[in-house]
Amino acid sequence: AEAIVRTLADCGVSACFANPGTSEMHLVAALDGEPRIRSVLCLFEGGATGAADGFARVTGRPAMTLLHLGPGYLNGGANLHNAKKAYAPSVNIVGDHALYHRQFDTPLSSDIHGLVAPMAVWVGEPTGPADAGVQAARAYAASFGPPGGPAFLIAPADTAWSEGGVVAAPIAPRRPEPASRAAIEQAARAIGAANKPALLLGADALSKTGLEHAARLGAAGVKVMMETFPANQYRGAGIFAPARLGYFAEMALAELEGVDVLVLAGAKAPISFFAYPGKPSVLTPEGCMTILLGAQESDATATLMALADAMGAPLDPPIAPPSAAPIMPGPLNTFAIGACLAKHMPAGAIVSDDGVTSGLAIYAATMGAAPHSWLFGTGGAIGGGTPVAVGAAVAAPEAKIICIAGDGAAMYTNQALWTMAREKLDVLTIICANRSYRILNIEFERTGAGAPGPIAQQMLSLENPVIDWVKLAEAQGVPAARAMTAEEFEAQLIHYLSLSGPKLIEAVI
Amino acid sequence: AEAIVRTLADCGVSACFANPGTSEMHLVAALDGEPRIRSVLCLFEGGATGAADGFARVTGRPAMTLLHLGPGYLNGGANLHNAKKAYAPSVNIVGDHALYHRQFDTPLSSDIHGLVAPMAVWVGEPTGPADAGVQAARAYAASFGPPGGPAFLIAPADTAWSEGGVVAAPIAPRRPEPASRAAIEQAARAIGAANKPALLLGADALSKTGLEHAARLGAAGVKVMMETFPANQYRGAGIFAPARLGYFAEMALAELEGVDVLVLAGAKAPISFFAYPGKPSVLTPEGCMTILLGAQESDATATLMALADAMGAPLDPPIAPPSAAPIMPGPLNTFAIGACLAKHMPAGAIVSDDGVTSGLAIYAATMGAAPHSWLFGTGGAIGGGTPVAVGAAVAAPEAKIICIAGDGAAMYTNQALWTMAREKLDVLTIICANRSYRILNIEFERTGAGAPGPIAQQMLSLENPVIDWVKLAEAQGVPAARAMTAEEFEAQLIHYLSLSGPKLIEAVI
Repeated sequence: AEAIVRTLADCGVSACFANPGTSEMHLVAALDGEPRIRSVLCLFEGGATGAADGFARVTGRPAMTLLHLGPGYLNGGANLHNAKKAYAPSVNIVGDHALYHRQFDTPLSSDIHGLVAPMAVWVGEPTGPADAGVQAARAYAASFGPPGGPAFLIAPADTAWSEGGVVAAPIAPRRPEPASRAAIEQAARAIGAANKPALLLGADALSKTGLEHAARLGAAGVKVMMETFPANQYRGAGIFAPARLGYFAEMALAELEGVDVLVLAGAKAPISFFAYPGKPSVLTPEGCMTILLGAQESDATATLMALADAMGAPLDPPIAPPSAAPIMPGPLNTFAIGACLAKHMPAGAIVSDDGVTSGLAIYAATMGAAPHSWLFGTGGAIGGGTPVAVGAAVAAPEAKIICIAGDGAAMYTNQALWTMAREKLDVLTIICANRSYRILNIEFERTGAGAPGPIAQQMLSLENPVIDWVKLAEAQGVPAARAMTAEEFEAQLIHYLSLSGPKLIEAVI
Repeated sequence: AEAIVRTLADCGVSACFANPGTSEMHLVAALDGEPRIRSVLCLFEGGATGAADGFARVTGRPAMTLLHLGPGYLNGGANLHNAKKAYAPSVNIVGDHALYHRQFDTPLSSDIHGLVAPMAVWVGEPTGPADAGVQAARAYAASFGPPGGPAFLIAPADTAWSEGGVVAAPIAPRRPEPASRAAIEQAARAIGAANKPALLLGADALSKTGLEHAARLGAAGVKVMMETFPANQYRGAGIFAPARLGYFAEMALAELEGVDVLVLAGAKAPISFFAYPGKPSVLTPEGCMTILLGAQESDATATLMALADAMGAPLDPPIAPPSAAPIMPGPLNTFAIGACLAKHMPAGAIVSDDGVTSGLAIYAATMGAAPHSWLFGTGGAIGGGTPVAVGAAVAAPEAKIICIAGDGAAMYTNQALWTMAREKLDVLTIICANRSYRILNIEFERTGAGAPGPIAQQMLSLENPVIDWVKLAEAQGVPAARAMTAEEFEAQLIHYLSLSGPKLIEAVI
């Protein structure tokens, strides 16, 4: 256990999000002796894996998690799925039974290698204490990919408790590479010959530097777009804003209409989120040439710079300021939430968006806010928002973290509120309380299931009873208030943003 | 979708625990048109799978669940693990992308077959609407095993939304069989020749009839024991009580000391829950002959009857009444909780035990209560208690359901409180609030990790901040009270047991 923990600290791991059990007790003891790693208790493993995701999206480095055998992994699974789709590195230590104990069918026995495989970019298990350190170093390096994702180190209890561990030297991760010079020149020529060339961005193409070069390509006549749910976008006043591809297939199809050359940088070819009867899965127009300059495994920033240079695109093109939406007084809605955030959110804020339908509107309304980072729900698994906010807050203690969560989404991982209180994290959680799985009320009709009958309506509703988010937050040590109007919301927002530490607003919309 | 739902209703499915998403909308629409199935919304899939587990343990029949692609399965995974270890049948419908959409890497894409395999007793997927009904009938039958467990029917969205479904006729499940006559006679002879014969019971051996025959064997000189965490034990005043094998290996070893013939009925050979340095995994004494008359796949009740008959064991032996523990006034502890329950719990109650350390003490103290059923945490995954209580309440609407949950365990699935309120379930949840993962404070030392240092202590503690369970329950529509003393607890228990509908007591111990 000590060899694993010290090796990871030597590699640069500085945070551990954990819900340990009996098989992880020696790892907990080892963390107790490792001051370079901040140990954070999560009251449900989805909180731990989501926090590691948020940490990685902000720092580019993996945190570690401690997961307790198969059930611990499964509880963390949905947010591992999100993290995998965010290409976010993490080192997940899954404690397992002692090697000699594995042959027996005990309550906690499961096929742990089989379980983790679908979510893993790497799985390893030391043969004993002697190679535990080197396997930890490999897990760390492997988590970077590229593309990055969850690495799993299975740690049998007897390997963790036995003497003979050896701290291993860090292994340098492989780094992403830009597209080749030849590929970039071909792409530049194709763009030059196109009627309506477009660029689709994801991953690090949406970083500060990536967007500077994307802006140059925009100024050179390329329509610049971005994936709907990337891991982390830098945005706000003065920052180039690509057009975000619509979530609904028909919106995305309209946005891509007429495009005859589509260049992908840090992104894959656009596909509908879900399939719908009679609608296409592939969103690229027929006859459009798709040029892959590298998906999420690539150095998209360097690719964009080279492409802009190859096209002779202007340096530092002017960025049109977005029009600021006014805050309309009266009953609260998502546009007012967005307008208030656009006005008051401080520079350097980090937004964790698990807002589903509300998130789409608030995103659109905050385009002109002070420069900030926006972390999206990447894998479609709701319940990522509050844990990602925990991880972002541990990663960037000086930043204001704002979590935008649907009420349905936040219920999945409401235990993250307790961790915010325990760790005194500077997170303001905004619950968009429409008291419904609103997206499903839309999707029900869109999938052709007709109009929901009375039982179906109940299956999509969060009323009866209404959840009291103020009490739910206070129960876990997080001060909270409820806003029914735009005026109330703005006043609460100003007040809470002026304070440090966790807070929650139940925004009734 | 209609063929699946109607076939399952024809098979006898009467409850669906669900958290649906876009890919399950047609299934929700089909449930809307099927009055024989009660649809119950859970705000997290662990609530749905745990409820199906509880439903099956009470009725012996599967409920269905709706899970949304890989993340929905993963969120439900830990309680599927518990259900598998309880040998509890369930039919889990996992919605997936349309078949033609699967080739693409979308946010919600995952290896769904790979993910579910480790938890499944059966996995099937229709090739299209024409065989959706028959696959549903197969899933239903397969969930019974024997032994029973989670069956998974993967339902691609286009299969669910296309015309051409055919409702299939129910398929008779395979039924468990008792041990052969020859095996029973051999076992009877071995018991007759033994110095200290013992019987280890699990599964249906702990049913009312199973225990009647076990009592006969006890009267014939056999030491009768039971597994530590079986699915469902019938117990209370006037009911034969086997000795429950201790959770800690050293306790179990002491209880089995000197046993030279161990007969297994509905149980596997006893193995330590965890491995510990220097302690054995196998708990059977060296030289003991172990006779397997059938594990959880068998008809242990019929086996016990045949064995008792073969041994000429007396019919209807007297059952010694357990001594009732007095309720000691003063600060509340688990013994007082148990003594109060023993005094006031009504006949026919069903207890869902997710109490970990507290559960061990309360179990011991309730031996003399009015006859009731006790559902244990079978798979070591905490967070099963409140969902199992939901399922038990749907299965037995006339029964009083009592959920005993550790505070650490109940936090995992606190969303189940909302479902209790929505469905007006007659569940009294007792939170044993020791504000700690108490078991880990014990296990830390037992695994040889030494004394926990300050960081380790924080990783095992639920203080800082203390969780306010009264607010957490009220936030979700469940009335609640806090008890600090035995007197307060007894008064609240009497009051809440006199009312119907969900209630919660935060028992501060």
